[in-house]
Amino acid sequence: MYPFRNDNVFLRNCWYVAAFNNELDAGPIERVILDEPVVLFRMADATPAAMFGICPHRYYPLGRGKVVGDSIQCGYHGFEFDGRSGSCVKIPSQNAVPGRFRQKIYPAVEHGPWIWIWPGEPELAHKDLLPPLAEIGVLQPDWRVDHVGLLPTAGRAQLLVENLLDLTHVAFLHGAFVDGAAFLQHPVEIVEQPLQLMAHRQMRSAWVAGFYDLLFGPQHRFQGSHLAETQTVFYSPGYIRTNSGVIHEIEGRDSVDRSVFGEVRFHHILTPETAQRTHYFSTMSRNYRLDDNGYSIAMGKLDYDVRMQDVVAVGEIEGNLQRFSMHGPELLARSDAASMRVRKRMQEMLDAERL
Amino acid sequence: MYPFRNDNVFLRNCWYVAAFNNELDAGPIERVILDEPVVLFRMADATPAAMFGICPHRYYPLGRGKVVGDSIQCGYHGFEFDGRSGSCVKIPSQNAVPGRFRQKIYPAVEHGPWIWIWPGEPELAHKDLLPPLAEIGVLQPDWRVDHVGLLPTAGRAQLLVENLLDLTHVAFLHGAFVDGAAFLQHPVEIVEQPLQLMAHRQMRSAWVAGFYDLLFGPQHRFQGSHLAETQTVFYSPGYIRTNSGVIHEIEGRDSVDRSVFGEVRFHHILTPETAQRTHYFSTMSRNYRLDDNGYSIAMGKLDYDVRMQDVVAVGEIEGNLQRFSMHGPELLARSDAASMRVRKRMQEMLDAERL
Amino acid sequence: MYPFRNDNVFLRNCWYVAAFNNELDAGPIERVILDEPVVLFRMADATPAAMFGICPHRYYPLGRGKVVGDSIQCGYHGFEFDGRSGSCVKIPSQNAVPGRFRQKIYPAVEHGPWIWIWPGEPELAHKDLLPPLAEIGVLQPDWRVDHVGLLPTAGRAQLLVENLLDLTHVAFLHGAFVDGAAFLQHPVEIVEQPLQLMAHRQMRSAWVAGFYDLLFGPQHRFQGSHLAETQTVFYSPGYIRTNSGVIHEIEGRDSVDRSVFGEVRFHHILTPETAQRTHYFSTMSRNYRLDDNGYSIAMGKLDYDVRMQDVVAVGEIEGNLQRFSMHGPELLARSDAASMRVRKRMQEMLDAERL
Repeated sequence: MYPFRNDNVFLRNCWYVAAFNNELDAGPIERVILDEPVVLFRMADATPAAMFGICPHRYYPLGRGKVVGDSIQCGYHGFEFDGRSGSCVKIPSQNAVPGRFRQKIYPAVEHGPWIWIWPGEPELAHKDLLPPLAEIGVLQPDWRVDHVGLLPTAGRAQLLVENLLDLTHVAFLHGAFVDGAAFLQHPVEIVEQPLQLMAHRQMRSAWVAGFYDLLFGPQHRFQGSHLAETQTVFYSPGYIRTNSGVIHEIEGRDSVDRSVFGEVRFHHILTPETAQRTHYFSTMSRNYRLDDNGYSIAMGKLDYDVRMQDVVAVGEIEGNLQRFSMHGPELLARSDAASMRVRKRMQEMLDAERL
Repeated sequence: MYPFRNDNVFLRNCWYVAAFNNELDAGPIERVILDEPVVLFRMADATPAAMFGICPHRYYPLGRGKVVGDSIQCGYHGFEFDGRSGSCVKIPSQNAVPGRFRQKIYPAVEHGPWIWIWPGEPELAHKDLLPPLAEIGVLQPDWRVDHVGLLPTAGRAQLLVENLLDLTHVAFLHGAFVDGAAFLQHPVEIVEQPLQLMAHRQMRSAWVAGFYDLLFGPQHRFQGSHLAETQTVFYSPGYIRTNSGVIHEIEGRDSVDRSVFGEVRFHHILTPETAQRTHYFSTMSRNYRLDDNGYSIAMGKLDYDVRMQDVVAVGEIEGNLQRFSMHGPELLARSDAASMRVRKRMQEMLDAERL
Repeated sequence: MYPFRNDNVFLRNCWYVAAFNNELDAGPIERVILDEPVVLFRMADATPAAMFGICPHRYYPLGRGKVVGDSIQCGYHGFEFDGRSGSCVKIPSQNAVPGRFRQKIYPAVEHGPWIWIWPGEPELAHKDLLPPLAEIGVLQPDWRVDHVGLLPTAGRAQLLVENLLDLTHVAFLHGAFVDGAAFLQHPVEIVEQPLQLMAHRQMRSAWVAGFYDLLFGPQHRFQGSHLAETQTVFYSPGYIRTNSGVIHEIEGRDSVDRSVFGEVRFHHILTPETAQRTHYFSTMSRNYRLDDNGYSIAMGKLDYDVRMQDVVAVGEIEGNLQRFSMHGPELLARSDAASMRVRKRMQEMLDAERL
């Protein structure tokens, strides 16, 4: 299935965010992940549990039940399943419980403000494969985190992955919010590492009207040029971060005042719902104006509006892919280099999983 | 198709309710039954007719037409089809009518407050296969009938059949309305007869708070225990009746006052719309407080709320069955005994029809 | 696919209306035609262009972009495609554009108040295959044109074609608006020509109550009979015209006053959206009361209400065709003669295209 060679498009040996951690506070939730129904809940000690979400007795959704100790109780006939082992531990209408019934359990971990699950082979679920919080700037003393929300996206996850790795769309798709003309012809350096791929560009330019006014405030406008670096870092198909740019130098100044010219990071959390739909979790963090709630609200609004343009575009493209057969080859451009490297890498990982 | 061995899941040689009888009073109606479009109407002498519902001229729905004598007239070009023979008897734009055109007719009968049709072989459509009205307590001098309505259900009929045959779900799915804890571990006796299967239980218990308050009124509360019997009677895949329980003895009393402690019967009328949807007709009857309209309204509200919980649950389960492939074997419990007997019996009837 | 022998039901070598011409004034529009997404826009000199509507770079809909000179600019990354050649002429993020990328272009022409496109072989797209404007009474000095609108129809185009060629449905489907009893048994003469098929009837009858009151005004009622001729002319699967009837003689009068007893023509423009949906463009023209705007509004309302009955009927029939398998042969009547000739002719044209 486009853009991969086979219809098996889910990389299973990977951490995916299943929920914001506060979503579990009010009880169990159900969510479809990699085309499987999953019930998520907190056990008695608050540890998260993730279990196949359909009761094996009558196929009722376990997410409609309630938590009893470490177990989830089905809302139809009251059968209970343990969150650690998956075993059926109680059938209210009889005394003995046959030992052979066991629900599938997914490794689950709370890491940062998110609940992550591992849909692949449990023995490969190492926590050092999660994005390091210190590195990404989340739950650190000098970084503030704000959630924007969960954006249900009617398109396959890889469309969002490749959208994020090519920021030349900013000038057109997001042209109403952000002046992206600076990105258009600026060279991008791609740095590949075993677990990451970073596309970054350094640009020397003037104050970026509109965008910088929003970001830093018009009262901080400066004359002359500055050197800024933007980064897009692919950690896994489930987690990509971009940023607002880091200002390295301002012409005529000895140093950059970080309390004014800080960095906003956009955490793009992509969890396939089905082969053609995606849970797009949106989180921001920043290292300045930490106590400025109004600024969080303003940036959250901007972030939401921009991401929704991507969500809508990806939905349109998905509709075209599903409804119309393709005509001729894909027209690739220089700006697709990073996307194509990631696509190739993911194809290799998918192929490796199938062996 | 679950839970049967083949995809041919419709038992055709069976009476199914196609409509409440008063639905036909205002003109023809169309309804999909066993995945066939059916037009239902009353002929000149008020006898019900059931005919394949699509005009063979231009495939317009006959249910959008009008009744002319014993015929249904198509609303597109005015062709008329006789309700007894199915023959085309008039083509307005010409004089002669070719004799070979004949619509399929279904045996149809008004029995109780319902219109029943027989989708199978017409020569097998014997009226003694209909549930006897005297036995089920409908249209009898000492029984009152109330309709609750037609509940469109987005799930296969067998899910409702098996739901009704295992009342241990009452304590959980209907826990907000009815205290079903008494049912949970109480032994059920199953009585099989050629045309019926009855699951009944006798229980000795105290006044059932909540449920008995609704049913009998809190002013009639008694101390001590009583002996009650509940019944679930499967007559056919199209008709099952349950009841509110019959009180046989009250501790310390010589007799049970039937004007206070009567019986409510719940008639569960299940007509497959398609292989994955069901027309669930809901009727109640009772043998006490016959003139108490307010009581009918209160019980109708309770009945509706409880059945809608089943309707919603069955819709959830149907969604799971359609969307997700199953994982491992079905987890059956002791309380599924009656359901499994009916499932086996229906599988045998389905197999017999295919021979 | 019904009513044709094969699933290839689109006659491609044919002019189809893609839009009313004023739809393009506000920018590009996208429309699915013969199951292909098409972007339509006006180039710098106002000439219409029609192009395959999905960007070959990222499959974003080109109809969401904007017109730049003679090109359509994609709204995602700004790639530009020329409306005459289909060539990609600009990629904003790089200097050179690979020459090999070329979008499919459809021959397009503005003819009358409509934009027509030719989905088949471009070299066969001759303008003399368009309906002649003088003959059909559109954009002529003594004819007024009014658009009623584009009616999205949830049914295959051939259902509308055959509906229009058999007006015996008027007495039933449109019985509330138009007294069609006169049509029912009146002989129809069918005249076949290479590019047309005309079904017409001459009828001698009295003032047609209701319909003539609307058409000519009750103050012009006359006693005695008149001779009227109605026509249905099939030009192509994409264009059929009918009329309100032409009055040739009125009993006891030497001539017919054309300023009172004029002719209204109903232009039925049928463009397949998919194999099971149709764009039904509705236009009227008339040769009397040219400046009477109130009359246009009244006739437009009648035209809309009548066509919507056809749209709804065709949707019902399409639903029956899709959902239920057919039962037995089609029941054809004498009044289907013209429809069957057109069906046969179209089958021959479809077969010829496949060779």
